[in-house]
Amino acid sequence: MISNAEIIAIGSELLSSSRTDTNSLYLTGKLNSIGIDVELKTVVGDTEARLETVVREAIRRSSLVISTGGLGPTEDDITRKVFARVMKRQLVLENKVLERIQARFRSRGLEMPTNNARQALVPIGAEILENTAGTAPGLWMEHEGSIVILLPGPPFELKRIFEETCIPRLTALTGGARMVTQVFKATGTTESKLDEMIAPIYSKYRNPTTTILASPGEIQVHITGKGRSEEEARQIVTELADQIEFALGDLIFSRGEESLEQIVGYYLVMRQMTVAVAESCTGGLISQRFTSVPGSSNYFLCGVSCYSNRSKVELIGIPPLLVEMGGVVSSDVAKALAEGIRLKSGASIGIGVTGIAGPSGGSVEKPVGLVYIALATEVGIECQEFRFVGDRNRIRYWASQAALDMIRKKLL
Amino acid sequence: MISNAEIIAIGSELLSSSRTDTNSLYLTGKLNSIGIDVELKTVVGDTEARLETVVREAIRRSSLVISTGGLGPTEDDITRKVFARVMKRQLVLENKVLERIQARFRSRGLEMPTNNARQALVPIGAEILENTAGTAPGLWMEHEGSIVILLPGPPFELKRIFEETCIPRLTALTGGARMVTQVFKATGTTESKLDEMIAPIYSKYRNPTTTILASPGEIQVHITGKGRSEEEARQIVTELADQIEFALGDLIFSRGEESLEQIVGYYLVMRQMTVAVAESCTGGLISQRFTSVPGSSNYFLCGVSCYSNRSKVELIGIPPLLVEMGGVVSSDVAKALAEGIRLKSGASIGIGVTGIAGPSGGSVEKPVGLVYIALATEVGIECQEFRFVGDRNRIRYWASQAALDMIRKKLL
Repeated sequence: MISNAEIIAIGSELLSSSRTDTNSLYLTGKLNSIGIDVELKTVVGDTEARLETVVREAIRRSSLVISTGGLGPTEDDITRKVFARVMKRQLVLENKVLERIQARFRSRGLEMPTNNARQALVPIGAEILENTAGTAPGLWMEHEGSIVILLPGPPFELKRIFEETCIPRLTALTGGARMVTQVFKATGTTESKLDEMIAPIYSKYRNPTTTILASPGEIQVHITGKGRSEEEARQIVTELADQIEFALGDLIFSRGEESLEQIVGYYLVMRQMTVAVAESCTGGLISQRFTSVPGSSNYFLCGVSCYSNRSKVELIGIPPLLVEMGGVVSSDVAKALAEGIRLKSGASIGIGVTGIAGPSGGSVEKPVGLVYIALATEVGIECQEFRFVGDRNRIRYWASQAALDMIRKKLL
Repeated sequence: MISNAEIIAIGSELLSSSRTDTNSLYLTGKLNSIGIDVELKTVVGDTEARLETVVREAIRRSSLVISTGGLGPTEDDITRKVFARVMKRQLVLENKVLERIQARFRSRGLEMPTNNARQALVPIGAEILENTAGTAPGLWMEHEGSIVILLPGPPFELKRIFEETCIPRLTALTGGARMVTQVFKATGTTESKLDEMIAPIYSKYRNPTTTILASPGEIQVHITGKGRSEEEARQIVTELADQIEFALGDLIFSRGEESLEQIVGYYLVMRQMTVAVAESCTGGLISQRFTSVPGSSNYFLCGVSCYSNRSKVELIGIPPLLVEMGGVVSSDVAKALAEGIRLKSGASIGIGVTGIAGPSGGSVEKPVGLVYIALATEVGIECQEFRFVGDRNRIRYWASQAALDMIRKKLL
């Protein structure tokens, strides 16, 4: 039975300062979902001696070893060779694989370069995992009680092979054990305040485990349960998840993968309402987030990023005196922006945002991070004052998040 | 002398499907800059037995081993203990460290929790790398010809310690060897076409090495040279970089870290010009990118994301007939948007964008990915037609990139 897995990512390009191994994140998610923990990940370059020590240790200590990359047709691609050496197996040319690679080239009207024949070399006793998305097949081997899987590096090929051929076989080997994760996404509070609210609840449980991940304007709670079956795992998760959901109430905006802009979009469609935005310090970010969602043209009418004072007056119709008198960062201007864009666009909801994103432009009275957000409807205008901390990008993102959340709460 | 480094990231949270080890990217960049290659990276959880095998192998094979994480005050933090065991050294309580931690708590009016005393445990013979940003100090040890550095996991603390104490010492140990990297950022072509242009040039060199990294709308060329001194490394890079720069010409928009929106901003300031945008399918993305740059209020006047037809007519002043007759995705509408926003805003340059970002809304005549971008100035209006491929986000990003690049080329 498989208890723990180890992933080896092979390729010198993964050891640069600008590249990171993302295949292992995908594999970890998939393995977790069938109850297998990943206990170790290694990134190693195309150096035979290095790779050899890594592979030797891995097979010795882990019941499942998955490698990614290094199955290409060039000299650099040493994965097959090194695994075969460690496992003391000869490499033999597998005709069926060779024919498939040749056919793949022929179907595109090309002749197979000689190099690609290398991809048909297979350690004796290995099973071929067919690659319907590329030339290099995956390989499945059993060795001294461990399962060893070699997968090609291109994510599209790796995913296709792993899903089609490995998941079903590994699932059978786990004896039915499963992991289930419930995600809650929350906004409108801080990580520590949220943790204070739910720590007394989740700390009573060792299974499921609870992880809190915070990014600007969004806090995710991941509740993961292990069981002997999917049903049992789900039950274990649900018992805790229900309590956490109750404790957090309105702070939760999503119970799955949806972003805040998607959730607000659902609400707008449901209520048959439309929205328009006049944003100064967020400079188009709120519009951009709304319109990143397919189908948003059904409820998003328009957005104006009014940076210059002239545009505030000309495009939104703000009274020139208001801009001249109180400065542009005030609740009055936010309200005028919200109501102005609502009237100009004919939307059911108008949003107005003005603030100081920094790094310059702040003062003692109006520091960097001060943002006013107003929401106008037919029946009235409300405005909230926020003081965000962080750099320009962080403040802008926080402000866009707060604006979207004001709409969500209005529509709840 | 140090020839190769190995990084061990310690912490079970780094083995989930949603988290990735970013400290190693920072460390790799810094090590590369002083001529040290990173040959192996491992991510391992808080399990003593696992960590022990990893540490033992690492010290055996690498002349520099850097670990990150696991230096906190809790039971889970096993780094000190495991390294001490592998290196057969006792852990002793270092009074100077203890006092510093106590003082840190006192300065915030708090008493030190007993747990934190653990952070003052040090393997015999280790040198303390003072942490001015947190409680856990780093540790520097020499063992059987290898250098072993333990650093805390929080990126801010890790960077502070590494920069202040490790870089100078490691630099001295490299015997002056250096790596220098020149980055070119290009846009307006494809990865394979760009590679065709420069492969005949760079393939003649083994040092420097050339890497091409492509992301939507941007291609980076990294040229990295190694030398016995910084000057030598720079010379080695320059010889090739000059040829590549000449071959790529105008395709290069940046010779450093600047983004396209920053570069366009520089040009606008230099020419004392201003810009305004009326964007349909990009929905605020171009505005958002312009305004993400500090100081952009000096040249960015306003942007309108006109999703509804009414907003195209009311806010930009497009003739209603034009929208009704030809549909909104046409070069005429793009031109009218560009000229309209220029006149409304008083900007020197007006940009108009209209297209089909998908996933729905496409037809045989006007498929998803068709985008018109127009640029209006006092002297006239030009328009280009693009056909981008990919999903909604990709098409939108490509379009924003093409629009910014049209401005750049206009201002060259």
